[in-house]
Amino acid sequence: MKIAINTGGGDAPGLNAAIRAATLAALRRGWEVYGIENGYGSIYTDEPFVRLTEKEVRGITLLGGTILGTANKGNPFEMPYQKKDGSWDTKDVSDHLMQTFEDYGIDALVAIGGDGSMRIANKLVNKGLDIVGVPKTIDNDIWGCDVTLGFDTARSIATEAIDRITTTAESHQRLMVVEVMGRYAGWIALLSGLASTADVILLPEIPFTYDSIVEKIEERKSKDKHYTMIVVAEGAKPKGGELVTKGKTIGQEVQLGGIARQVAAELTERTGQESRSVVLGHLQRGGSPTTYDRLISLRFGAAAIRCVQERDFNKLVVLQDNKLTSIPINEVANKMKAVPLDSDTVQTARDVGICLGD
Amino acid sequence: MKIAINTGGGDAPGLNAAIRAATLAALRRGWEVYGIENGYGSIYTDEPFVRLTEKEVRGITLLGGTILGTANKGNPFEMPYQKKDGSWDTKDVSDHLMQTFEDYGIDALVAIGGDGSMRIANKLVNKGLDIVGVPKTIDNDIWGCDVTLGFDTARSIATEAIDRITTTAESHQRLMVVEVMGRYAGWIALLSGLASTADVILLPEIPFTYDSIVEKIEERKSKDKHYTMIVVAEGAKPKGGELVTKGKTIGQEVQLGGIARQVAAELTERTGQESRSVVLGHLQRGGSPTTYDRLISLRFGAAAIRCVQERDFNKLVVLQDNKLTSIPINEVANKMKAVPLDSDTVQTARDVGICLGD
Amino acid sequence: MKIAINTGGGDAPGLNAAIRAATLAALRRGWEVYGIENGYGSIYTDEPFVRLTEKEVRGITLLGGTILGTANKGNPFEMPYQKKDGSWDTKDVSDHLMQTFEDYGIDALVAIGGDGSMRIANKLVNKGLDIVGVPKTIDNDIWGCDVTLGFDTARSIATEAIDRITTTAESHQRLMVVEVMGRYAGWIALLSGLASTADVILLPEIPFTYDSIVEKIEERKSKDKHYTMIVVAEGAKPKGGELVTKGKTIGQEVQLGGIARQVAAELTERTGQESRSVVLGHLQRGGSPTTYDRLISLRFGAAAIRCVQERDFNKLVVLQDNKLTSIPINEVANKMKAVPLDSDTVQTARDVGICLGD
Amino acid sequence: MKIAINTGGGDAPGLNAAIRAATLAALRRGWEVYGIENGYGSIYTDEPFVRLTEKEVRGITLLGGTILGTANKGNPFEMPYQKKDGSWDTKDVSDHLMQTFEDYGIDALVAIGGDGSMRIANKLVNKGLDIVGVPKTIDNDIWGCDVTLGFDTARSIATEAIDRITTTAESHQRLMVVEVMGRYAGWIALLSGLASTADVILLPEIPFTYDSIVEKIEERKSKDKHYTMIVVAEGAKPKGGELVTKGKTIGQEVQLGGIARQVAAELTERTGQESRSVVLGHLQRGGSPTTYDRLISLRFGAAAIRCVQERDFNKLVVLQDNKLTSIPINEVANKMKAVPLDSDTVQTARDVGICLGD
Repeated sequence: MKIAINTGGGDAPGLNAAIRAATLAALRRGWEVYGIENGYGSIYTDEPFVRLTEKEVRGITLLGGTILGTANKGNPFEMPYQKKDGSWDTKDVSDHLMQTFEDYGIDALVAIGGDGSMRIANKLVNKGLDIVGVPKTIDNDIWGCDVTLGFDTARSIATEAIDRITTTAESHQRLMVVEVMGRYAGWIALLSGLASTADVILLPEIPFTYDSIVEKIEERKSKDKHYTMIVVAEGAKPKGGELVTKGKTIGQEVQLGGIARQVAAELTERTGQESRSVVLGHLQRGGSPTTYDRLISLRFGAAAIRCVQERDFNKLVVLQDNKLTSIPINEVANKMKAVPLDSDTVQTARDVGICLGD
Repeated sequence: MKIAINTGGGDAPGLNAAIRAATLAALRRGWEVYGIENGYGSIYTDEPFVRLTEKEVRGITLLGGTILGTANKGNPFEMPYQKKDGSWDTKDVSDHLMQTFEDYGIDALVAIGGDGSMRIANKLVNKGLDIVGVPKTIDNDIWGCDVTLGFDTARSIATEAIDRITTTAESHQRLMVVEVMGRYAGWIALLSGLASTADVILLPEIPFTYDSIVEKIEERKSKDKHYTMIVVAEGAKPKGGELVTKGKTIGQEVQLGGIARQVAAELTERTGQESRSVVLGHLQRGGSPTTYDRLISLRFGAAAIRCVQERDFNKLVVLQDNKLTSIPINEVANKMKAVPLDSDTVQTARDVGICLGD
Repeated sequence: MKIAINTGGGDAPGLNAAIRAATLAALRRGWEVYGIENGYGSIYTDEPFVRLTEKEVRGITLLGGTILGTANKGNPFEMPYQKKDGSWDTKDVSDHLMQTFEDYGIDALVAIGGDGSMRIANKLVNKGLDIVGVPKTIDNDIWGCDVTLGFDTARSIATEAIDRITTTAESHQRLMVVEVMGRYAGWIALLSGLASTADVILLPEIPFTYDSIVEKIEERKSKDKHYTMIVVAEGAKPKGGELVTKGKTIGQEVQLGGIARQVAAELTERTGQESRSVVLGHLQRGGSPTTYDRLISLRFGAAAIRCVQERDFNKLVVLQDNKLTSIPINEVANKMKAVPLDSDTVQTARDVGICLGD
Repeated sequence: MKIAINTGGGDAPGLNAAIRAATLAALRRGWEVYGIENGYGSIYTDEPFVRLTEKEVRGITLLGGTILGTANKGNPFEMPYQKKDGSWDTKDVSDHLMQTFEDYGIDALVAIGGDGSMRIANKLVNKGLDIVGVPKTIDNDIWGCDVTLGFDTARSIATEAIDRITTTAESHQRLMVVEVMGRYAGWIALLSGLASTADVILLPEIPFTYDSIVEKIEERKSKDKHYTMIVVAEGAKPKGGELVTKGKTIGQEVQLGGIARQVAAELTERTGQESRSVVLGHLQRGGSPTTYDRLISLRFGAAAIRCVQERDFNKLVVLQDNKLTSIPINEVANKMKAVPLDSDTVQTARDVGICLGD
C-alpha cells in the first residue's frame, strides 16, 4: 500500500502530530508514505511527492505549523496561475493531479484540512480518488465533529492573552476590546471569554446591541468595578447591522480587524470611558499545540490509517459524542457548526453573569 | 433557597472555577450560598459555614487549590479525633452534620469531590441530605464521566515535564523513568506518555514484563536512538508481581514512589545502560488550571445549580458522550473507570510504536 | 515611620511584587504603610490613602497589574479636570498633595514608575517631598539602569508570540511583520527578535532602508527559505522618513500600530510575496511576571525601604553594573537609555545573520 | 580557520542556542565549524567530528538538550574503558585528542561547559590546545560570572513548580518540602524560593537549625496560616550536621534526594503537622530555555567566536558586572561561586520575612 498525506488551509497547532501518527501507523503496517507539499502545490512540480519515514516525523509532535507546508495552492480545481500579461487567473488542474497519483501508484490520500479542504476532497472523491479526511481548524466549526484539531490551542492562547490584558484593563480602569478569530462561528470567543472571565462576549451567532453592553458597563461601575473586558469574534455584528469590515481579500484570506476598533470607539463615545482594542490575529494559530491538541491530532492521524486499512474511504475521521468514528465527507462538505444557543456552555456564560450582547 | 458548597479529597486544578460558577449561578437566582471549609471540617466548629458572595469568588477561576480548603476532615462517618491518651480514633458525627444543616436552613449541598467524596455523599443522601455532586479528580477514574475536572491540567503538567526530561535523556543517552499519578487507572500515564512521545508506557491495567521493555530499548539502539523514555503509573506492576511499594498511609493518603526506582534499577541491571528516575508527585495536582479545565469546571459548577433548581438531587453532574447530564451518585459510588484496553487511544499508542509492556 | 507607595504610568508585570516587598520590608521595621490609588488620584478624594498590611499584599507577587491602580491621574502638576462647559483642562494641584502628606504625617514616598513618573517625582522632590523611586517600564529605557521591572516579561511574551507566528510564516511561505512596543528605544524588538531568531529587526535607533530588507528576503529565497520574519519596534522609521503614524492621543497614550502595516504593504509591493502584520500591543504589558521580573521587583521594593531607612532620599533604586545601588532621580529624569549600537547584543544579532535594516 | 565545538557535563537549557550562535558567527567569517559529539566521546571513534552548517543549527535555539550530546565521555584525562575481565577503569587519552585535532587541522575549540569542563579545558590548554570556554550550569556557581547559561530556566522551572505545590499545601494545610538542585551553592533554592514566596529556604551556605523552622511554622499558625512552604537545596545541611545522603555514584553523577525527606519527617515529628516532600530533580535541567537563557546563550556563543578571532585564547566568556568580557580559564577552574550572604538578594529574602534557617 502507498498513501499520500497533505495539509490544506490555514495552519493549526497539531498538524505535525497528525502527520506523525498517520505516518508511523502506516509504516507499522508495512506501507509506503508520501507527503504532498504546500497544499497540493508540489503535485505540479518535478517532485510531486516527498518520501516520509520515521526520520522525517521525528520530534515534530510539539512543533507548530506543518512540515508539509500549506500555501495558496490548495485547490486543484481553481489553481492560480499567472497569465502572459502578468495578471492572475485560475484553472482546473485536477486531471493532472489524478494522473500523478496514478503514475506514482498512490492508493489513497489522507487529507488534513478544514471545510474548504473537505469541499475540495469531496470533488476529488467524485473524480475517483480514495480519501480519508482529518478535521483541522482552529475555528472548531466543522459540522459533525465534537472538536477539531487546533481548536484547544487557539482557545488556550486567546484565554491567556485575555488574562494578561485584563490586568491592564483593571489597573488603568479601561474598557478593553479583544478581537479573536471566528468569522462565522463564535467558538473561540465564547470559550476563551468564559475561561478568562470576560464580562461581555460577542458572537456571530448573536447579533448584539450596544445598549446591552453599556448596561453591563454601568452595572459593573455600580459595583465599583471600573473596567470591563469585552471579547468579540471577528464575525460579530450589531443587531440589524452589517459586518463592520467588508473583508478585503489578500491571496485567499480575508483581512478583518475592524469590529474591535468599532466597538471600542462606539463604547467610548457612549460611556465617556477610555477604551483600547487588541486584535490577536495570527497569534492564535501558530506554535506548539496543547497536550489536548497533541492527543486529538495523534488519535485522528492514527484513525485515518485504520480507515484506509478498512477501505472506509471518502470519510472524515471525527470525534462524535466523544467516540472516535468516521462520517461521509460529502455530509460535512457544505455545512458549518455554529455555537448552539441552547448549549450548556452558553447557559453557563449567562449563569456566571456574562453579557452576550442580547 | 440556601445552598452549601464543599470540596473534598485531594485538591485539583479547577476546584475554584467550579466554586465560582456554582456561587454566581446561585446568586443570580437570588439564593444564598455558603461554603463549608476543610472538607466537612468547619461543620464541627463555631463557624460551620462561611458566606459566599461575588466578592469571595472574584478572580479565583485561574487559581489552583480551593478557597474552601480540603483537609483530612472529609468523612463525617469516620471523623478522626484524639483520645485522652493521645492516640487517634474516628467516630460517626454525621448526625451532627445533618442537624447543623437543618439549624442553618441549608436546602442542598453541592459536593465537589472524587470517588471517596461520592461514597460519603451517597451515605449522606441515605440520611436525607439533598446533594448534587461535581466530579473532581486528576486521575480521571470516576465511573460514568467522559472526563473529570483537574485531569486535563494533570496530564498537561506531566506532558510538559516528560518533554523536559526527554531532552536530558537524549543528551545523556540514558534510560529515564518518570512516575506519574494513577494508582488504579493509567489515564495520566497513557495520555501524557502519548502526548510527549514516550517510548514505553506502563499502566495498572496492563501488567508488564521487563522483557518487553528491554526489547524496545534494543530496538531503539538498533536504530541509533541511545535513550529511552519510560512513563510509569504509580500503580503499574510487573506481570505476576506485586505493587512495588506496599503503601504507607500518612493521614489518608498513600505514599508511593517506588515503582519508578525499581524499574530504573532493573533496566540498568538488564541492559547495563545508565538510568534515572523522576517522581512527579504533587507537581501534578496544584497550580493554575488549563483553559480546558477552567471550562469544564465552570460548566460543572453552573450545571450543579441547575440540578438543584430542578430538584434533580442525589445526582452527579457529568459529561457523558460529550453531553452534559446527571447520573445517580449511587451508581458511581463504588465503581472505577479504568482505561479500556480496546479504546482508540490505546490503539493509537500502539500504532505510533509505543511499548505498553505487554 | 509612615510611608506611602504609589504606582504610576502604564502597568507592568512585577508592580505587585515590588509593592509587596516594600510593604513587608517596611512592616518588618515596625513602620506603617499606606497606598495611594490610581497614580496620585486618591489623594484628591475623601480617602487619600489605603492602609497596607500583610493581608493586602498576600499572594500578589505573581499577579499582573497593580493592586494600587494606575489611572490617568498621575501628574499632580497637570491634573485633568472638567470645566463647567464640559471641556477638559489641567491644573497644578501639587500643593494639595504636599498638604495631604503633611496632614496624614507621611514621612516618605516610594514612587514606582517610569520616566514620566520620575520627572514628576523630581518636581515633588523640589517641593520638599522625600522620595525613593523604583524603575518600572516594559520598554527598559530608563537611563542609568541595567534593567527595569517589567522588561523581562515583555520581551518574553513578545518572544513567545513571534515563535508562534514563525510557524505560520513558514507553513504559508509568507512575510510576517510583528510590531512590538518601543517608541524611542528598541530593547523589546532587539531582544525578542534575537531570542525568537527573527530574520529582520527594525529599531528606532537604526533608520532602515527597504532595500536592505528586500535583500535579506532574496538571500533567504536563494537558500530555499520562502518566508521571512520581521520584528519592528513601534518607533522604527525608514531612513530619511518620518514616523509612520503621527500618533493620535486618546487620553494620555499614543495610539500607534501603523509601522507594521506599512512595512508589510511596502514589502509585498516590492517582492510580490504575500505578507501579514500583527501588532502585539497591550499583550506585552499585562499578566503574571516572569521569575526574573518577580525577583528584580522584589529586590527593588525591598531596596527602596532600605533607602528610606538610611534617609537616602530623592534617589532611584537601580541595578547598575549588576549591583544594586541608588542614583539621583534628577540625573535620570530627562534622559533616555537607547540601545547602544556597539553593544555585544547588537553584534550578536549581526553575527547570527539578522538584518538590522541598515 | 577551522574550529570545533563541544558541550560537556550535565545538559542545560540554552546549550543549543550557544551552539547555533557560535556556528553562525563562525560561518559568517568564512570559517569551517565542526562539532564533537558526546562530550569528547566522538574523538575516539571513526568519525571524530561532525560538520556543522546552517542546516544543522536551524531551529534549535528553543530546543532543550544539546544536539552534540554530552555523555559520560567528557574527560580525556580519565576516559573510562572496560578491561578484559569486564571491570571498568580509566586512562589518559589526551594525547590522542591532541593528535586528532592536529590531524584534522582544527585551530581552536569552543568548550561549552561547567566547572568540571573548565578544569579539563585548563589541562588541555596546558597541553597546547587553543580554547575559548562558555560558562554553562544550571547551578550558577561558576566563579567570575554574573550568570551562567541554563540558570534562569532552572530557577524559573523551580519557581513554577513551587507555585503549583503551594496551592496544594494551602488547600491541605500541610508542610511541603521541595528539594531543588544545588549541591554546593544555593542559587536555585534562594531565587526560586524568593520568587515563589516560600516561607523557609535552606541553603548549603547557611547551616540550618530545626528550631528556626519550627518557630516560623508556629509564627504562621499564630497568623492563621496553617501551611508552610519549605524550599531546600540538595546540599543544605543542619548546623553541626552532615550532608544527609552520603551520595551514591551511578556513573559520574551523585544521587541525592534525602534532605527533603529528612526535613519533612523531622518537622512532622516536631510539630505533629502532616508533611510531604517533592524532589524536582531532572525537571530543572531539561527543556526549552527561557527568553533570558536564549539571549545569554546566543550572546555567549557569538562572543566566543569573537575571542577566537582575536586569538584571545584560554579564556572563559563571561558576563561580569553586566558587561560581556573574558577571563582566564585557569582563574575559574578550581573555584566556586557561593551565594554571598551579604548580597541584597539575601537581604531581600529576610526583608519579606523568609526564614533562612539561621
